[in-house]
Amino acid sequence: MSDLRSEAEALDSRDELAAKRKEFVLDDTVYLDGNSLGALPAHVPGRLAEVMTHEWGKLRIRSWEESGWWTAPERIGDRIAPLVGAAPGRLVVGDSTSVNVFKALVAAVRMAREGHEGRAVRDEIVVDATTFPTDGYIAESAARLTGCRLIPVAPGDVPGALGERTAAVLLNHADYRTGRLHDLPGLTAAVHAAGALVVWDLCHTAGALPVGLDAHGVDLAVGCTYKYLNGGPGSPAYLYVREGLQPRFDSPLPGWNSHAEPFGMRPEFEAVDGARRGRVGTPDILSMLALEAALDVWDGVSVDDVRAKSLALTDFFLRCVGAYVPQGRVESLTPAAHAERGSQVALRCEGAGDVMRRLVERGVVGDFRAPDVLRFGFTPLYVSFADAERAARVLAETLG
Amino acid sequence: MSDLRSEAEALDSRDELAAKRKEFVLDDTVYLDGNSLGALPAHVPGRLAEVMTHEWGKLRIRSWEESGWWTAPERIGDRIAPLVGAAPGRLVVGDSTSVNVFKALVAAVRMAREGHEGRAVRDEIVVDATTFPTDGYIAESAARLTGCRLIPVAPGDVPGALGERTAAVLLNHADYRTGRLHDLPGLTAAVHAAGALVVWDLCHTAGALPVGLDAHGVDLAVGCTYKYLNGGPGSPAYLYVREGLQPRFDSPLPGWNSHAEPFGMRPEFEAVDGARRGRVGTPDILSMLALEAALDVWDGVSVDDVRAKSLALTDFFLRCVGAYVPQGRVESLTPAAHAERGSQVALRCEGAGDVMRRLVERGVVGDFRAPDVLRFGFTPLYVSFADAERAARVLAETLG
Repeated sequence: MSDLRSEAEALDSRDELAAKRKEFVLDDTVYLDGNSLGALPAHVPGRLAEVMTHEWGKLRIRSWEESGWWTAPERIGDRIAPLVGAAPGRLVVGDSTSVNVFKALVAAVRMAREGHEGRAVRDEIVVDATTFPTDGYIAESAARLTGCRLIPVAPGDVPGALGERTAAVLLNHADYRTGRLHDLPGLTAAVHAAGALVVWDLCHTAGALPVGLDAHGVDLAVGCTYKYLNGGPGSPAYLYVREGLQPRFDSPLPGWNSHAEPFGMRPEFEAVDGARRGRVGTPDILSMLALEAALDVWDGVSVDDVRAKSLALTDFFLRCVGAYVPQGRVESLTPAAHAERGSQVALRCEGAGDVMRRLVERGVVGDFRAPDVLRFGFTPLYVSFADAERAARVLAETLG
Repeated sequence: MSDLRSEAEALDSRDELAAKRKEFVLDDTVYLDGNSLGALPAHVPGRLAEVMTHEWGKLRIRSWEESGWWTAPERIGDRIAPLVGAAPGRLVVGDSTSVNVFKALVAAVRMAREGHEGRAVRDEIVVDATTFPTDGYIAESAARLTGCRLIPVAPGDVPGALGERTAAVLLNHADYRTGRLHDLPGLTAAVHAAGALVVWDLCHTAGALPVGLDAHGVDLAVGCTYKYLNGGPGSPAYLYVREGLQPRFDSPLPGWNSHAEPFGMRPEFEAVDGARRGRVGTPDILSMLALEAALDVWDGVSVDDVRAKSLALTDFFLRCVGAYVPQGRVESLTPAAHAERGSQVALRCEGAGDVMRRLVERGVVGDFRAPDVLRFGFTPLYVSFADAERAARVLAETLG
């Protein structure tokens, strides 16, 4: 056995999160695509069967109240809250990430403009130019509908792009392609210094590392729940609104679910207080309750421990790649510095699409991002050091 | 046995849709709330278990392609299409009804303004003043973001409210409260004559009666799938865009799923052709595939037969109410004329909230709409004439 294999074995034997793996449905595949779709927590199908046969099948309409369907969006928001450093009452679950980016950005522009009458109008939205595309498209739509100009800049250049015309800034906590972690506390402070509001997209960090939304004074945040939170394909996203902003949160999607009295059926809209103001239409109960069940795997887990294991895994994987893969065949796009690294490793590689297909055939599942990136996500709850070693070894064999 | 009970028995024995009832999970409750949440089709839990354990649990990320997850929104749209009189390629499933109303209305305003440069700007959105509230709230938001004035009018007064400033009109095919069916062909023609676009909300008609979207030249339509389509609690809604408008459909929610090349990850948005242009973010697969399975109950069913049974059921229920309930205790808000009736009966009744609670205790489930309405929905696929007779009888006993 190679030294790295023995080392992986030793690391796994000391891993306090190792026992979590058995809570997921996994096989002998090395699954490094949890940053795209988290693995299935084993108890979810049973719970959802109960939702279908008992709550929908037997109680039917009564379940909106008796089974707690109506309050699911805020209840599940409160389950996610500790994972992103938020107190209860700040998050609400529902809709897709794209739709939540829209709510957050339009509301941010509106709030940034309040009380600024007579001064220069805030008419610029700054957006991460390297963002996952949907955020950019939605930001462009939000800009168009609020009369703003969209200013795409690299995250490092954001401070220089801020000014008295900046209304809102949309940033990704981690870059979906390279895995680079951006400086959430520093950039949030810079945006605030300019008198603007910041919206953070946490898709690639929630459940992988501490976020500290409340502690860092983040204004608004959104994220999906099907990556490191394992909520299932297309499970509903969430919206975070800082407590102090909640009374001013003015949603562009004011559905009946965000009304102060939703069953009053009143023609005039009056927004409910708190996180529920981010709700829109009838919540998608099957997907939402699958997510709620999936969050059980976090019971007793510390996000700091998750982060420590995540960094250890990506460090170890990069060492294995360095040891196994012939020089010059791949180049890591993921920063070496821990402070700048999310929970994935992105390798630039010639013919990456083809290489990934061969890796998948050999039981190592990552994904390909055009034009030339191999992406490997490390979910600390179920990925082992042995997985990391095997992935690097198979990659080397594939390229060899 | 009373005459009406014998008549119910005879009607049920001649009912060609009666066999459909066994495809649903039902008990000895008279379930007249399918206009709020359709009953569970018996095969859905089995299908969703397979989606979870095999597609998510085993294939994981591969299912986006191999299990057809990625194309589910348009594939399921094509399953709904014949039920609302649309050709394939006109509908896409996803998001909530509220979110789809937003997409449809903003896009309608944009399209109505095209090519009108130099003439009076179209800056009015006319909305049904008796609408289900969420449509009104969203219409107000769409008006605010597009610089329009919102004009709420009773549906009967819509023709008189139309003019050269009208951009878009949002109407309900059936009133959620009274069950009144509005004149879709006539109102659509009136809106077109004014040079505006119409958006129809089909929540209370799709699956209950023929809609004829293509035949009547409807521009845009939205609807939920958890009422007469039995998709499950909060199952995703749909958006219809008339073929001729599709190339001009300019969504205010242009997510990566509506990009011409979604995996190209390109920073510039370029809208895909066809119905997919109405997609936004990652589709909610569990809820979506539960809906897809639920639509199997429509195999071999003619919507005309459904309509015939629906009218026969509501006629019969109203007769039973007339025969059993003491004079003056309830008043039907539902039009007697078939052409003006959806698939529910709404009875105004003193103390309606309390009356409905007692009905539910006695196994007759309808719902209460503030301040004084008892609502009874008749889903022709699983409600029998015996159910209608029993509901009227228990209502009479409750009021007696």
